[in-house]
Amino acid sequence: MHHMSPDEFRRHGRAVVDWIADYWEGLQHLPVTPGREPGATAALLPDTAPETGEPFDDLLADMDRVVVPGTVHWQHPGFLGYFPMTTSGPAVLAELLAAGLNTQGMLWSTSPAAAEIEARVSDWLAELMDLPESFRGNGVIQDTASTGVLLALIAARTRAERDGAGPYVVYTSEDGNACITKAARVLGIPDAHLRRVPVAAWTRAMDPADLAARIGADRAAGLTPLAVVATVGTTATTAVDPLDAIGVICREQGVWLHVDAAYAGVAAICPEMRWIHRGLDQADSYSTNPHKWLLTGLECSLTYFADPAPLHQAMRVTAAYLHDRGEARIDYQDWQIPLGKRFRALKLWFVLRAYGREGLQRHLREGIACAEELASWIEADERFELAAPHPFGLVCFRHRAGDGAGRELLARVNADRRLFLTSTESDGRFLLRIAAGGTATTSESLKAAWQRISQTADQVTTAADPV
Amino acid sequence: MHHMSPDEFRRHGRAVVDWIADYWEGLQHLPVTPGREPGATAALLPDTAPETGEPFDDLLADMDRVVVPGTVHWQHPGFLGYFPMTTSGPAVLAELLAAGLNTQGMLWSTSPAAAEIEARVSDWLAELMDLPESFRGNGVIQDTASTGVLLALIAARTRAERDGAGPYVVYTSEDGNACITKAARVLGIPDAHLRRVPVAAWTRAMDPADLAARIGADRAAGLTPLAVVATVGTTATTAVDPLDAIGVICREQGVWLHVDAAYAGVAAICPEMRWIHRGLDQADSYSTNPHKWLLTGLECSLTYFADPAPLHQAMRVTAAYLHDRGEARIDYQDWQIPLGKRFRALKLWFVLRAYGREGLQRHLREGIACAEELASWIEADERFELAAPHPFGLVCFRHRAGDGAGRELLARVNADRRLFLTSTESDGRFLLRIAAGGTATTSESLKAAWQRISQTADQVTTAADPV
Ligand SMILES: Cc1ncc(COP(=O)(O)O)c(C=O)c1O
Ligand SMILES: Cc1ncc(COP(=O)(O)O)c(C=O)c1O
Repeated sequence: MHHMSPDEFRRHGRAVVDWIADYWEGLQHLPVTPGREPGATAALLPDTAPETGEPFDDLLADMDRVVVPGTVHWQHPGFLGYFPMTTSGPAVLAELLAAGLNTQGMLWSTSPAAAEIEARVSDWLAELMDLPESFRGNGVIQDTASTGVLLALIAARTRAERDGAGPYVVYTSEDGNACITKAARVLGIPDAHLRRVPVAAWTRAMDPADLAARIGADRAAGLTPLAVVATVGTTATTAVDPLDAIGVICREQGVWLHVDAAYAGVAAICPEMRWIHRGLDQADSYSTNPHKWLLTGLECSLTYFADPAPLHQAMRVTAAYLHDRGEARIDYQDWQIPLGKRFRALKLWFVLRAYGREGLQRHLREGIACAEELASWIEADERFELAAPHPFGLVCFRHRAGDGAGRELLARVNADRRLFLTSTESDGRFLLRIAAGGTATTSESLKAAWQRISQTADQVTTAADPV
Repeated sequence: MHHMSPDEFRRHGRAVVDWIADYWEGLQHLPVTPGREPGATAALLPDTAPETGEPFDDLLADMDRVVVPGTVHWQHPGFLGYFPMTTSGPAVLAELLAAGLNTQGMLWSTSPAAAEIEARVSDWLAELMDLPESFRGNGVIQDTASTGVLLALIAARTRAERDGAGPYVVYTSEDGNACITKAARVLGIPDAHLRRVPVAAWTRAMDPADLAARIGADRAAGLTPLAVVATVGTTATTAVDPLDAIGVICREQGVWLHVDAAYAGVAAICPEMRWIHRGLDQADSYSTNPHKWLLTGLECSLTYFADPAPLHQAMRVTAAYLHDRGEARIDYQDWQIPLGKRFRALKLWFVLRAYGREGLQRHLREGIACAEELASWIEADERFELAAPHPFGLVCFRHRAGDGAGRELLARVNADRRLFLTSTESDGRFLLRIAAGGTATTSESLKAAWQRISQTADQVTTAADPV
């Protein structure tokens, strides 16, 4: 056996850095999605690990042989599906540094600098986004927004239990993310007790009057309304739920309000986008993912609590290995489910500093401007119609000939493997989605993409839907 | 704004690679723990993010100014506390590659190569460890073993609910990890329904007769025994619960058996250590953390299920963005709580290949041999006594003069900041712990550490405990 020496690390590290730089430079020339059948990557791998160690150069060579041809390239300029999962040089290098340090921050005492940097950058982000004062000092980095919702529900239950309660009900809109269903199930709340509140037709924002009525009916039926999960920027169409009206209902009813702004929340770094958080001061908790639009790479999701006490009550455990606590310290153990904690704050610190407020705003505004431009092209094309507002980087549209034509267009565009779009459903109708905001997606690349989509639309053979 | 160009990335990437190599080379000369007071790192940071971007060189310089002096160095040769959290060149560089690709593997279709590599390397590890056949094809990488326990309890509840059940009870030993308490709470199982089964005096292994009696009594009282969490290598003293006897009870009683082998499980890569898993074929689920002793760095925890169907039933949700599924594909969405998924399998793949079976065995055996050597020095010193068996890399011992003397010794050793040890409690008595197995901890460095501890023991002033 042989551990890689620091000098070997220097040599191989350079090769890996070059590999990534080459990959980024050549990305536009690769197909965005792989052509491999299921099982084709596995077929390239031996059935068992090798008996003796292999040279690092062979591992790196397999990035090109095994990994790249089997990968969906989320950083590709033609990747316009889902939401962008942006990263950046500073974030990638901070991940490298965090991996090299390999510290474990379960307690302040096990990684003091990491804990204090996490607390500080959580506040930096809150200030950049102008989040309510109640969230300052109360942010934590989790892996994902799914975990954020789960922690919010756990905290909500802990608070509710003080009054002795039972069967719980959770509310979100028709378009609330599937992770809300999962989080509720984890707590033992069945799908039947997750209320999907209807949304308005065009905006797809949650209907607060309907929410209030359901809460009242559930209470009358002996159920306990536990939490409302409102969304700022739904996964389907980036709808923004009316936090102000929802917040008033939650306050009146004593129901926990969690705001899931996984994708869109960071847009509030731009003052002209702050309207999305109107009423947020009434929320009990809030999540947003810098790993989506804010250049940090997976995983980096911020969750803020107006009062973290119920979370701590649920998460705080005692053990000999957790005894080294103290006042004036932040022990992240009380803020999360896992015992171990990676130094994720490092990349957020690097990104916020490398870009600064100005750079972050410019990046976000570029995504928004791209979406506006794209929407104008769609509006100008009589074959299509916009299907939802586009306040952020996502544009949803329909083929006027109907869902069949839309589906055919999507299949044809994606089959080409130069672009990757996804779709969604809204009111039972099929929508195409184009998500700008990726760092490789520029006004020019988007124009070329739209030309390709437009030309592909000429080939659609599906007849118009019967009216 | 300005995104780092590929050429800038090459330049800064080299600097970061060199920084890490320098850090590793110089580590032994740094104090292992920082001397900073709480708040001292935060005081070095501005209150808000900068208005404009800062040069990358300034960020890197702050690693030395802000981070290193405030860090507990988990990779330091003198870090002998907790369990080692090992990493390696191949793992760190694989993290870098994964960050550069920045793919998101919620479904096979969103990252096919990542999914197939994860499935394959999970099987590689199962084969290396000679895990029961039932676990083959059923492994998944999670962040931590805490999440593994949580998923196991979720799956157990899903299976139990088929028969309509409730109030649930979970069983673990007195020394079961605190994450079991947390996981139970997440499900809504109060601490009062987490039974801490007594352990044998010297081995600190769970008493199966007591377990059986408690299960019987709980059932008689109208409660539903949900799951037993047995431990292979407890956090306190690396005790190994008797899986064979516990497994028989669980089978008879229809109770889910999860085996938490977070730290010690990977030792089974060495055939002479396979005894730790005797009876594991009766388990429903199993977790072990390559990020502890197997060189992958945080986070990399494997969880295996004998039958993943109940987990999938609990985790599977539907949504337009999750529709692209298919037979003969592994959609990890159904295996985890978060929607997003990082490419963690890459580093496990790299580590298993870079070391090979032989290299991994040699690394593990070195840790075990170090612990044996250390134990022999402790036994030869009449001031001390061994306090528990030491089958792995951890040695627990007592100061014969009593707990006060032990506590003073620990405080004096750690105050020096050249070594870092932790302690635990067992039967109300204070034990010192020394954990070998870190990649920088060699037979020589451990000998030097023991000399220092032994000399420091000469300075202990606390009088012997009254007998
Ligand atoms: C036996 C055992 N189980 C679980 C854990 C929790 O580890 P993690 O950080 O992976 O959740 C540990 C950590 O040391 C452990 O030793
Ligand atoms: C609104 C919203 N909430 C939650 C999520 C879940 O994201 P994560 O992977 O961070 O759990 C998403 C993902 O796209 C989302 O758009």
